[in-house]
Amino acid sequence: MAIITLLTDFGNTDHYVAEIKGVLLTEAPGVTLVDITHSVSPGDVRSGAYILGRTWHRFPSDTIHMVVIDPGVGTSRAALALAAAGHCFVGPDNGVFTPVLQDTPVETVLLPTPEAASPTFHGRDLFAPAAAALACGTLLQTLGQPFTGMPERLAYTIPHFEGKTIVGEIMYIDRFGTLVTNLTSELVPAYARLEVEDLDIGPLRRTYADVGTGGLLAYIGSAGAIEIAVRNGSAARRLGVGVGGSVRARLG
Amino acid sequence: MAIITLLTDFGNTDHYVAEIKGVLLTEAPGVTLVDITHSVSPGDVRSGAYILGRTWHRFPSDTIHMVVIDPGVGTSRAALALAAAGHCFVGPDNGVFTPVLQDTPVETVLLPTPEAASPTFHGRDLFAPAAAALACGTLLQTLGQPFTGMPERLAYTIPHFEGKTIVGEIMYIDRFGTLVTNLTSELVPAYARLEVEDLDIGPLRRTYADVGTGGLLAYIGSAGAIEIAVRNGSAARRLGVGVGGSVRARLG
Amino acid sequence: MAIITLLTDFGNTDHYVAEIKGVLLTEAPGVTLVDITHSVSPGDVRSGAYILGRTWHRFPSDTIHMVVIDPGVGTSRAALALAAAGHCFVGPDNGVFTPVLQDTPVETVLLPTPEAASPTFHGRDLFAPAAAALACGTLLQTLGQPFTGMPERLAYTIPHFEGKTIVGEIMYIDRFGTLVTNLTSELVPAYARLEVEDLDIGPLRRTYADVGTGGLLAYIGSAGAIEIAVRNGSAARRLGVGVGGSVRARLG
Repeated sequence: MAIITLLTDFGNTDHYVAEIKGVLLTEAPGVTLVDITHSVSPGDVRSGAYILGRTWHRFPSDTIHMVVIDPGVGTSRAALALAAAGHCFVGPDNGVFTPVLQDTPVETVLLPTPEAASPTFHGRDLFAPAAAALACGTLLQTLGQPFTGMPERLAYTIPHFEGKTIVGEIMYIDRFGTLVTNLTSELVPAYARLEVEDLDIGPLRRTYADVGTGGLLAYIGSAGAIEIAVRNGSAARRLGVGVGGSVRARLG
Repeated sequence: MAIITLLTDFGNTDHYVAEIKGVLLTEAPGVTLVDITHSVSPGDVRSGAYILGRTWHRFPSDTIHMVVIDPGVGTSRAALALAAAGHCFVGPDNGVFTPVLQDTPVETVLLPTPEAASPTFHGRDLFAPAAAALACGTLLQTLGQPFTGMPERLAYTIPHFEGKTIVGEIMYIDRFGTLVTNLTSELVPAYARLEVEDLDIGPLRRTYADVGTGGLLAYIGSAGAIEIAVRNGSAARRLGVGVGGSVRARLG
Repeated sequence: MAIITLLTDFGNTDHYVAEIKGVLLTEAPGVTLVDITHSVSPGDVRSGAYILGRTWHRFPSDTIHMVVIDPGVGTSRAALALAAAGHCFVGPDNGVFTPVLQDTPVETVLLPTPEAASPTFHGRDLFAPAAAALACGTLLQTLGQPFTGMPERLAYTIPHFEGKTIVGEIMYIDRFGTLVTNLTSELVPAYARLEVEDLDIGPLRRTYADVGTGGLLAYIGSAGAIEIAVRNGSAARRLGVGVGGSVRARLG
């Protein structure tokens, strides 16, 4: 039976996610539901995109990923269903699908808004029925018209050289205060020294225990990108930087 | 296979919900468990009732809804199982079932307290076994004696006219700080102006984007009731009002 | 089909738990996943152990419990799979399995670290594949070499007499601020008076309603151990004590 994952900013305290799950279980009986997270900050499309990029490919083929971080709900922003790399995705066209649009062909359809849909809750009334239909075997192409034009993409600092330094940016900060960058292990040689906003972090380490408690370190994180952390502490709090902040790998 | 939903104030940090799930999966193998929320404030029966009212009817027929917000656990408050509109419900008789008791016939039985039940954890020792029995096909009537008398109901300000103004109250405040009222779209004409605690909110809008960022607006929410929100902000914080606060729709 | 429970300190806001679930559902299709909690404080092995002890035995035989509170990830700490009392467990050897190691024979194997495992995310790359293999019927013995030596155990104050007083300690504090002790109902007679850090709590009560709102009480909790609570309040805040604090039952 199909799997539907849910990634939203609806939180875990209210009824919104449960309303969506009720619709999914009614329209796609027996479907397996997996919460990615519902704790994205309200409207934080960028964090939602990062989390989607970290998770979707870990699931089996044919998984349907429902992503509802939708500050433009009820406006003219498009509602999309996408097929890419053997997975399906439904959600608003606001950049949240950026990590899926990188290097694989994507088929995209424009989802029509049902007459009776609440203008403030497309998660329940538009995206959930679309996800349920896909879970029941409905073909993507039959859910709507082909989407002409390109789905929106978020803009990041593309890692680049400035002299002997590779410059990138902080993509995400996790609950531990770890700074995740977009400098990958393929890009940065093992002998590089890292800097965050002009502060020297030192060379690449292997794991937290390579520095003392409270020590600051850089290492290749579990997605293959360089991360900056404080052992048993928070690098975000220590360094006072946020998403979009600058990170540099000095090669000389 | 049956679905059991869980709505509690046990939180997501402790072991209580997992103990309940262990009992349910042991006594009703293969049951599908769906968390509504476990983040109701401790003992907040009113919020629990609101969330139940928003969610239960979204699930398929024969779903069993377990509602354990139970500040009176271990006292003489009755433990109930209800059947209404093709769904079943188990939980304490403290008003939490108010939204189910509105306009449909309800069959109610009094659940006996098992000898070995912990006086502080009926969720695990009384309600979970009852829900599991229902999930396995046990008839409601065989779970206990018929409940004579009426299950408790919460009292709200019933929407009413004061001159040319319809008066209601704030029923719930969600994580976004949105104020949900009990003034419905059937009751309030489209030309009304809204007021919260004497502050003018303006006419009914369609969706958030109909006002600028930080703007205050009233609109028909996703349950058909008028809501007051701040676009990309919190109406609860802006207005400093809480559940039970007064809301008015001025018609003239 | 098998059940895998998940108990971690990864939180509910990031992608870590979803990455693990993606691996589990890919490598063990159809497995039932149950979240115990992901809100253990980062690295708080002691709370994790307590929660494991409260929950594992509530699940059906053959359940696989994945416990990833792993501040030593990437160091030489052992990665273990255990079989005890008809259940299986996977996680780091740091004391988190203490409640399973009490009075039952345990079979333990040392899990090898896969070549490609991220040194900071054994939850995804080591423990999840091991749990998935067990869920698919792989025998524990084939997952690794037998673990010689004893898995680590946490040290607690073993309840003991000092004159006519039984002395124990606070094992856990829940979201309600309830203090859970390791003084059990078998150990402490019904006529005892309780003390926390020299403050008299009074005799054992049956349930919260046996004192007035705001009243402090001791009672036999739902795990058979004495708990200290404030009715509709927080005993932890009122008394200012923490895990490891002293509790006494005076018999004379």
